[in-house]
Amino acid sequence: MKALLEAGFKGELYAVNPSGGEILGLEAYPNVKAIPDPLDYVIASIPAQSILQLLDDCAAKGVKAVHMFTAGFRETGTEEGRRLEAEIARKAKMYGIHIIGPNCIGVYSPKINMPYGMANVIGEVGPVAFISQSGGVGWRVVRAGVCRGITFSKGVSYGNGCDLDSVDYLEYFALDPETKIIGAYLEGVREGQRLVQLLQQVSPTKPVILWKGGRTEAGAAAAASHTGSLAASDAVWGAALKQAGAIKVDNVDELVDTILAFHHLPWLAGRNVALVSGLAAGGGGDSVSSADSCTSLGLNVPPFTVETRNQLKIIHPVPGTIFRNPLDLSGAGLSLQVLGQAIDLVGADPNVDMVIIQEFVDDIVGMWPQGAVEEINDIFVSFRQRESKPIVVVLPPGLAEPERIAVGKYLSAARIPVYPTLERAAKALANMNQYLARKS
Amino acid sequence: MKALLEAGFKGELYAVNPSGGEILGLEAYPNVKAIPDPLDYVIASIPAQSILQLLDDCAAKGVKAVHMFTAGFRETGTEEGRRLEAEIARKAKMYGIHIIGPNCIGVYSPKINMPYGMANVIGEVGPVAFISQSGGVGWRVVRAGVCRGITFSKGVSYGNGCDLDSVDYLEYFALDPETKIIGAYLEGVREGQRLVQLLQQVSPTKPVILWKGGRTEAGAAAAASHTGSLAASDAVWGAALKQAGAIKVDNVDELVDTILAFHHLPWLAGRNVALVSGLAAGGGGDSVSSADSCTSLGLNVPPFTVETRNQLKIIHPVPGTIFRNPLDLSGAGLSLQVLGQAIDLVGADPNVDMVIIQEFVDDIVGMWPQGAVEEINDIFVSFRQRESKPIVVVLPPGLAEPERIAVGKYLSAARIPVYPTLERAAKALANMNQYLARKS
Repeated sequence: MKALLEAGFKGELYAVNPSGGEILGLEAYPNVKAIPDPLDYVIASIPAQSILQLLDDCAAKGVKAVHMFTAGFRETGTEEGRRLEAEIARKAKMYGIHIIGPNCIGVYSPKINMPYGMANVIGEVGPVAFISQSGGVGWRVVRAGVCRGITFSKGVSYGNGCDLDSVDYLEYFALDPETKIIGAYLEGVREGQRLVQLLQQVSPTKPVILWKGGRTEAGAAAAASHTGSLAASDAVWGAALKQAGAIKVDNVDELVDTILAFHHLPWLAGRNVALVSGLAAGGGGDSVSSADSCTSLGLNVPPFTVETRNQLKIIHPVPGTIFRNPLDLSGAGLSLQVLGQAIDLVGADPNVDMVIIQEFVDDIVGMWPQGAVEEINDIFVSFRQRESKPIVVVLPPGLAEPERIAVGKYLSAARIPVYPTLERAAKALANMNQYLARKS
Repeated sequence: MKALLEAGFKGELYAVNPSGGEILGLEAYPNVKAIPDPLDYVIASIPAQSILQLLDDCAAKGVKAVHMFTAGFRETGTEEGRRLEAEIARKAKMYGIHIIGPNCIGVYSPKINMPYGMANVIGEVGPVAFISQSGGVGWRVVRAGVCRGITFSKGVSYGNGCDLDSVDYLEYFALDPETKIIGAYLEGVREGQRLVQLLQQVSPTKPVILWKGGRTEAGAAAAASHTGSLAASDAVWGAALKQAGAIKVDNVDELVDTILAFHHLPWLAGRNVALVSGLAAGGGGDSVSSADSCTSLGLNVPPFTVETRNQLKIIHPVPGTIFRNPLDLSGAGLSLQVLGQAIDLVGADPNVDMVIIQEFVDDIVGMWPQGAVEEINDIFVSFRQRESKPIVVVLPPGLAEPERIAVGKYLSAARIPVYPTLERAAKALANMNQYLARKS
């Protein structure tokens, strides 16, 4: 209630508490039936033993959807918990009420200023929808999304999913015109075959980035006690998802990283990457390792054309500079003009489908004149605005954290995806490319 | 020169420039022979074509070691560059002078306030030595090390290594009493067999964490133009390193992450990890994914003993809390006492060899009372000080970056290794465990 009020929820809010009185300035009704107006949606944060009574009241009031924060059901592993959850499902079906949960955070909808659970964070409205069986993972996605410039249509955490399940939410987002990209975290699925069919239908128009928890024995045991899920093997999941055209990821960072690439970037024409390092200090080692990482993770690091290499030599004729891909600018003589021209040249190379820049902000702060950090990043933003080829910036942590965080925000606002490591950038782009290659 | 002066280098400094005059307040001698005092070490930042004359002068002056920043030799791929480099090596051998480089940053020695190249960062003296063929990678190691609480005995970047090579530096650090842990980044090795023999000798007493760049075709091509190195295949390297007892890592983050574990932690008794999440918001999904990641990366997530589970139930009898490993505290009722007892209980479990905590600082800031961030982290520091089992904290970035950075510094100062993701923590610990298991 506090989070809804603080976020400026755009609908009417009613408080319910058997003791009456006031809650945060709102009159507390003794039960939902006592509320004078019609209700669209009920959020239940009450003990498990009162939940069946609440359903009866909601039915009497004509409520069509109930979100249950309440835990203490199937996930406890007890007979009592399982019985109670089955009874919720039975009653809900009988009454024609849909249940979100139990044991979940529920719906996030920035368009109507409905925050994600207790978090006082709304963020902008945008094309990404997420489906998360875990409330915590949903929050990781919203938080990282807001920090990194991802914008959401809607999101939902559904916990035990005793009525509406992942497949129902996926079906909704498949048809939702406000949603263009779908991210999902699942621990188990009741209707595996329907999920795969739906993924096959939705994937050609909307990328679905799917992370399945419980892919190891230890993880599956944790999933069983978290949301009462029984897991299929990782190999079975992997094969089914691939066949269905979904993008399989393995952890929350890869989920958000991949959503970020789809959210910010024009679609890739292929997997050929130009790597640029050494904006300040020498980037020779970074060049070697970034070439290794990109190649290992499924991208390709092609040679530049002879013309590009000749042009690079003309603009920056300094011994020790390596005019290959990866391009080690080794400070580019600390010239903004050389840097700008070099980025344009490698970006224009016909062998190149995307550009990844490795930017160590503390090196720039230490070696370039004051104000250069802003001017260097303006070069990338200008490229982003002028060119159709994706540009991505890797911003590793270092000795100048406030400056790095500021650069991250600036680039994110300009829809340049920012990653903390080259490996995470490369994996996200490889995931994007794999999806597009399968589609075409 | 500027960096040496600013860092307060503990020896005498002499400037050399053919034009004479002053450099940063020091008299500039026309050449090294004109310096009135004996010289231990010469740092050359002069054009490649003058380097042979410098060697002649150094020989006349009785200099025993020359560090060459100067580039433009074998790494250019030109006949002229190769010839000049061979001539340096020949002359140096003839004169009995040892060469560090060319094309490198040279020596880092915090004990004598010798900074790493131009970087104005010294840091504390400690047990870690690094050997880096790449100057930039050496800097990444120093920078990340200083940020994360790693302390160094000495370090060296040696570039083309025309005289002293990786094996010579490794031999030095093997015998150096100030060095207990060795990290290395190599692009190529001239004496592969000697390297493997040396690794076999040193590994039982000092862990050697070794990252080999150029493990893919694209990376090897970059290495050839960076330091003129010819690479062996990744499979050949991997097998040789494993046989020699070295710890193979694949990128700079994994190199620093693994050094960090050895630097901060008591040695592991085994690979059984207790995972703790949900310090503030629910950590159910984090539990599932951390169990998956740890298991996939070579750690084991064992069940707690019945006694531990019963004790956990007694201290925190709240429905929805999962008394398994991974332990999802789900806020632990926002009680410092419960949190402290829970950490002690899982740490004392005989099935557990180490504890990994997932801490989302912004969740704590958002949900706990003010001041709780400090008190929560005091619990981990107290555990670190009292207990011999390793404790590690994962601190992902989020909405409260200044607070997170402060926590990171606080934990690092208390020798608790901090990682930005669970996966990186797990990989570092798995690397450490693999080394110890091979040793025993």
